[in-house]
Amino acid sequence: MRVSCCLWIAAAVVLAGQGTPREVSLIITNGTLVTMDATGRILAPGALAVDGRDIVAVDTPQAIAARYRSTDTIDASGSVVMPGLINTHTHAPMVLYRGLADDLALMDWLQQYIFPAEAKTVTPAFVRAGTRLAALEMIRSGTTTFVDMYYFEEEIARTAKEAGLRGVLGQTIIQFPVPDAKTPAEGLARAERFVRAFAHDDLIVPAIAPHAMYTLDGDTLRAARSLADRLGAPVLIHLAETRDEVMVASEKHRATPAEYLESLGFFGPRTLAAHGVHLSDTDIALLQRRGVGVSHNPESNMKLASGTAPVPALRAAGVPVGLGTDGAASNNDLDMFEAMRQGALLHKLQAGDPRVLPASDVLAMGTREGARTLGLQDAIGSLEAGKRADVIIVSMDHPRQTPMYDPLSHLVYATRGDDVRTTIVNGRVLMRDRQVLTLDERAVLTEARSRAKDVRAAVAR
Amino acid sequence: MRVSCCLWIAAAVVLAGQGTPREVSLIITNGTLVTMDATGRILAPGALAVDGRDIVAVDTPQAIAARYRSTDTIDASGSVVMPGLINTHTHAPMVLYRGLADDLALMDWLQQYIFPAEAKTVTPAFVRAGTRLAALEMIRSGTTTFVDMYYFEEEIARTAKEAGLRGVLGQTIIQFPVPDAKTPAEGLARAERFVRAFAHDDLIVPAIAPHAMYTLDGDTLRAARSLADRLGAPVLIHLAETRDEVMVASEKHRATPAEYLESLGFFGPRTLAAHGVHLSDTDIALLQRRGVGVSHNPESNMKLASGTAPVPALRAAGVPVGLGTDGAASNNDLDMFEAMRQGALLHKLQAGDPRVLPASDVLAMGTREGARTLGLQDAIGSLEAGKRADVIIVSMDHPRQTPMYDPLSHLVYATRGDDVRTTIVNGRVLMRDRQVLTLDERAVLTEARSRAKDVRAAVAR
Repeated sequence: MRVSCCLWIAAAVVLAGQGTPREVSLIITNGTLVTMDATGRILAPGALAVDGRDIVAVDTPQAIAARYRSTDTIDASGSVVMPGLINTHTHAPMVLYRGLADDLALMDWLQQYIFPAEAKTVTPAFVRAGTRLAALEMIRSGTTTFVDMYYFEEEIARTAKEAGLRGVLGQTIIQFPVPDAKTPAEGLARAERFVRAFAHDDLIVPAIAPHAMYTLDGDTLRAARSLADRLGAPVLIHLAETRDEVMVASEKHRATPAEYLESLGFFGPRTLAAHGVHLSDTDIALLQRRGVGVSHNPESNMKLASGTAPVPALRAAGVPVGLGTDGAASNNDLDMFEAMRQGALLHKLQAGDPRVLPASDVLAMGTREGARTLGLQDAIGSLEAGKRADVIIVSMDHPRQTPMYDPLSHLVYATRGDDVRTTIVNGRVLMRDRQVLTLDERAVLTEARSRAKDVRAAVAR
Repeated sequence: MRVSCCLWIAAAVVLAGQGTPREVSLIITNGTLVTMDATGRILAPGALAVDGRDIVAVDTPQAIAARYRSTDTIDASGSVVMPGLINTHTHAPMVLYRGLADDLALMDWLQQYIFPAEAKTVTPAFVRAGTRLAALEMIRSGTTTFVDMYYFEEEIARTAKEAGLRGVLGQTIIQFPVPDAKTPAEGLARAERFVRAFAHDDLIVPAIAPHAMYTLDGDTLRAARSLADRLGAPVLIHLAETRDEVMVASEKHRATPAEYLESLGFFGPRTLAAHGVHLSDTDIALLQRRGVGVSHNPESNMKLASGTAPVPALRAAGVPVGLGTDGAASNNDLDMFEAMRQGALLHKLQAGDPRVLPASDVLAMGTREGARTLGLQDAIGSLEAGKRADVIIVSMDHPRQTPMYDPLSHLVYATRGDDVRTTIVNGRVLMRDRQVLTLDERAVLTEARSRAKDVRAAVAR
């Protein structure tokens, strides 16, 4: 289908170039187009023609005006137009726990706050309320695709679709009883139903999310992989996030976490490993060989003192590395601009070299490379004709962004999610000039505040 | 003068408590008052009575309403009211170089971009334009006091006063020819004129700013100290920012940078050392003994790959540590909320312990402790009766700040400078509900963009 669609577009473009302008659904013009394509093309100014869910052309404003017309045109003067950001790791509903507890040792944080709160508050309605809040925050900060691992993932999928966001959403499988499954077998059955329900969806890629090697036994890990293979679904897993996980793997399996998973035959195509903080050179080579992508979560890894992922080494080895925020309980927000800046700063410091991870690299990780970690590089991650119209328009006129010598520098070092003015996913405008069109913002905030009372009660001592 | 003023306030408060409400210039009520006083008092809700330049009372809304009345009342419902942030290290006019060049080796960045740009563009008019832009950004992001080191510092002082900001401003002294002085002797003479011109100013504390031990010879460093002693002025200096500086000190003086300065008799009261990245335990003890404060600049130190300052050790030793952004050419903004978050994240990672530098500590560094590094702890840094009314009102209703379990957590981990709605310095409202009242925002941005053309030309090759 994708090939025929592209041919059709190509034919239309040729025809459009010869005769009357072609009517399209949306034109965005006069902005600085940061395409994030493989050549790093920037058009200043540039324009974009969108028809339905697709980008049909990327060119100068003059060329687009000559070939296309639309009743809906956005003037992006003074702004950057770029592909929407791809958050490769989060737990959306956990926004309802943000700031519930911070600055604690990891086990105290989990055992005294997060686990009790989850046990007592996670229900389908809670997950919907949390996902609505997360979607609101993501739309407002320019994230157009998010990768999720949580419970009741079908609720997250439905809510994301209503909000208009794209998601690679993984139903969690875990060894101990959790709010949506008493046993891992129940979790696997749930995952299968979830993947079948959302197969062939235009916005949702349903995935299998075995939680981690230290929260699952070998049989369940193998079962998760074979289920994913059977359904053709991507696999999401936490990998080598903490020193503790490495210690567990070493003590129980005399292997690194990655080696242990490899011994189970766990790795396969479209597998995304979140964190990858403590990886040996052998692990990196293994991930590369198996085509596994890594989601780097710099803010979470710093705030929880997990460590620094070997991002330059992973990228040098050819492992696709995207950026993620992690859940907002550990970050504490879903702002991918923060994740990009944090990634750039952290690895310069770590390497002792300010040239490491320049702005263009972290922007690629937030867009094009993020898409590669998901096998979605033909559909999203750059502004190119034939790809889905996942586009954001980012204001560049704040005092903090003045003057502007280089849009890439400003996007990483001086821009916040709040500078995003317009967010478009699959050709649908979700936010226009800071007005979110697909969610009732006031109602979402009111419900979140009401849910917070239950959370507070759940952890009260 | 301070003592008699405080006595007068105390008397007034007692009187006000007994009879008709006292008329004051401004009341801020119904917000969550994060006082940042030594006991960490939070009033939720609380209120603040301001008269002229001073805070006259901090109490519950009911108590303030009973004792004070004002024709000007700000309802801060749903917001945090807290002391204005203190940026302990910047070079304000360098906002005009922000994003000019990034991701380069330090010497390439300096020698190919910053030094040539400064040599060709720094004039009094340039410094005024840059300071206006910096002031706009600082007011908009909640900084009420800034510590500056640059050239033509009298222009910075005049512009800061017009904008209404408080500043501890240091005229730079440096060994080589710079835009405002051909020799260090000229720099010293300039510094003396500057300090005399702004002595006893209500907003400006004029200071002497010998640049660093590696850009000045021993005689000039000694002369700067003795000038400061003669004038009773604070001293600002860069200290141990890079490994190179440590190497220079070791090779030329067989000492650390701090030991070398100590050997010259350089350290004295009201001395603020910027960066302090590479400090030995002996250096830390030395700074403590001499009462030297340190300005920690986490973003700049990460972006330029300078290293990680030993902040927990400095604080444990009793050295006052404030936070700074550094100049926007190396950061790339003046947002102190970013500096606080960055400080918290960086030291957790560095220590491998998420309990290090909790939110309350970095907030103290951004306010009360920042004031201590400047010897201004009796005047600013917390909301307490008798202190100057340097106050900010920070919105807490963004989706990213929802829900709110703990205002301190949100201020550090989920708040941006852009969430500041109202900024007050010395009792004067500089920004009200995001409307800056003391600067013509459009004119400031237009002039900055025009200056940027000269900067671009200066570094064109």
